[in-house]
Amino acid sequence: MPTFADRLAEAVRAKGPLCVGLDPRWESLPKAIREKFAQLPPPMNAEAAYDQFCKKVLQLVAPYTGVVKPQSAFFEQVGPCGPQGLASLLNRAKEMGFVTILDAKRGDIASTAEAYAHAAFHGYRADSLTINPYLGRDAVEPFLSAAKKAERGTFVLVRTSNPGAGLFQNLVCDGKPLDRHVADEVVKWNASTIGTCGLGDVGAVVGATNPRELVELRAAMPDVWMLVPGYGAQGGTAADVKAAYRADGLGAIVNSSRGVTFPFHPDDPDWEAKIVEAAKKAQAELRA
Amino acid sequence: MPTFADRLAEAVRAKGPLCVGLDPRWESLPKAIREKFAQLPPPMNAEAAYDQFCKKVLQLVAPYTGVVKPQSAFFEQVGPCGPQGLASLLNRAKEMGFVTILDAKRGDIASTAEAYAHAAFHGYRADSLTINPYLGRDAVEPFLSAAKKAERGTFVLVRTSNPGAGLFQNLVCDGKPLDRHVADEVVKWNASTIGTCGLGDVGAVVGATNPRELVELRAAMPDVWMLVPGYGAQGGTAADVKAAYRADGLGAIVNSSRGVTFPFHPDDPDWEAKIVEAAKKAQAELRA
Repeated sequence: MPTFADRLAEAVRAKGPLCVGLDPRWESLPKAIREKFAQLPPPMNAEAAYDQFCKKVLQLVAPYTGVVKPQSAFFEQVGPCGPQGLASLLNRAKEMGFVTILDAKRGDIASTAEAYAHAAFHGYRADSLTINPYLGRDAVEPFLSAAKKAERGTFVLVRTSNPGAGLFQNLVCDGKPLDRHVADEVVKWNASTIGTCGLGDVGAVVGATNPRELVELRAAMPDVWMLVPGYGAQGGTAADVKAAYRADGLGAIVNSSRGVTFPFHPDDPDWEAKIVEAAKKAQAELRA
Repeated sequence: MPTFADRLAEAVRAKGPLCVGLDPRWESLPKAIREKFAQLPPPMNAEAAYDQFCKKVLQLVAPYTGVVKPQSAFFEQVGPCGPQGLASLLNRAKEMGFVTILDAKRGDIASTAEAYAHAAFHGYRADSLTINPYLGRDAVEPFLSAAKKAERGTFVLVRTSNPGAGLFQNLVCDGKPLDRHVADEVVKWNASTIGTCGLGDVGAVVGATNPRELVELRAAMPDVWMLVPGYGAQGGTAADVKAAYRADGLGAIVNSSRGVTFPFHPDDPDWEAKIVEAAKKAQAELRA
């Protein structure tokens, strides 16, 4: 079986660097879907509506992307049964041939980290998981080991896309900012996992909202897959994210969530066409 | 209704600073409980066994502690239905009068952070949630707002208890280590939430495994409730954690998970008595 990095490379070569984020929100769903399940009591109405909407999105975006990223928080928000919908969605995405990223930003120590990794790679069968580095190498290690064993990947938060990301990530320690310290560790963790595509299984999350940082972090992590949030609704442009690609065109997947999955008003009967149009446009922009 | 900080103070005044961590692990459970559910297919056997074991632990430790901390990861590990068991456990703990801490170390931005906070405070009805500060103030803010609105609390990771915690947390930026930068922010976030007990609703996680750090961080965060992991099985002693208490005896809750909940061999028929004994001993040690 090819490595996670090689499967990602194959997806990007086939369909470009677009990654579609699946962040279902009740108030943004097409009214037709909300009404269809209106007779169910909450939270079952939301569970059913999220399931139908997200699986429809998979069909609609499949020609334009090979990578999808469900956000765990929105399924957890529905209630303690929400994770079952997340599992079902991840399984469907896998069956359809998508590379999946479970965006859950987990981070804990020792056997607790092992438990999260087990949930992600075996419970949810996700191809990869986003993780938080604050707790240090020995807390990241159980995620890396579990990913290696299961032939999956991880994306370590290096530089996030929110306006206040710099509060800690910009602190300069020993002459370099904290996010650069994290990046240098990611390079080490990634080194033993390089696939035939020249990139490894330990990726980095690097926001598109600070293009200068993106340039520096690309240079600091030449063999690291970047998952780039912040394109589209958060303000990052296709020109901004170009800095994340390597010369061979690989190296970054660029996430769009709301921009691709909610480009319509809930009342709009043409919501499916709007999603197709938005996915097509994002694919074209990012490939250009 | 009293603030979260005041409810915590009341629990600590009544029963001391012990917090019992609920981290169920299949292989550590009493054999009698595992066998009772052996006819159920996985993961239903684990779900049923975790439910029975954890609720029994609540009964056994109730005389010795007023605070319990279920670890989300171990329930997530069971599979996508695991969170239902976590919800049921948190509800039972609440009915029994415990102050609850949902240990999930969540962290994300904007509406995603809101979704996690909603899950914790309304889905799980937890009294408080552990959160990760790496993403910065605007990522922490939705958790603080949701906690304020729902009269709940948060515990921000400042200094973790793992051996490698210092990789990033010890980096010195502008003359002080990263964990101290985080601590100084926690003081600001906590300032507007001080209750009649003199402590606020925005707490800090500070490991017991580095006593020097504990002294410095107590001084840096005089009005902040500390959740102290690392006591017991992880090597921190009752003498080590003393530095976390304020002069009034309040200010810290000290977590023990394995030390109190798994002080027996799975074959031991006297496991209930062993838990009572361990909880009683921990309570006495920490109060002394």
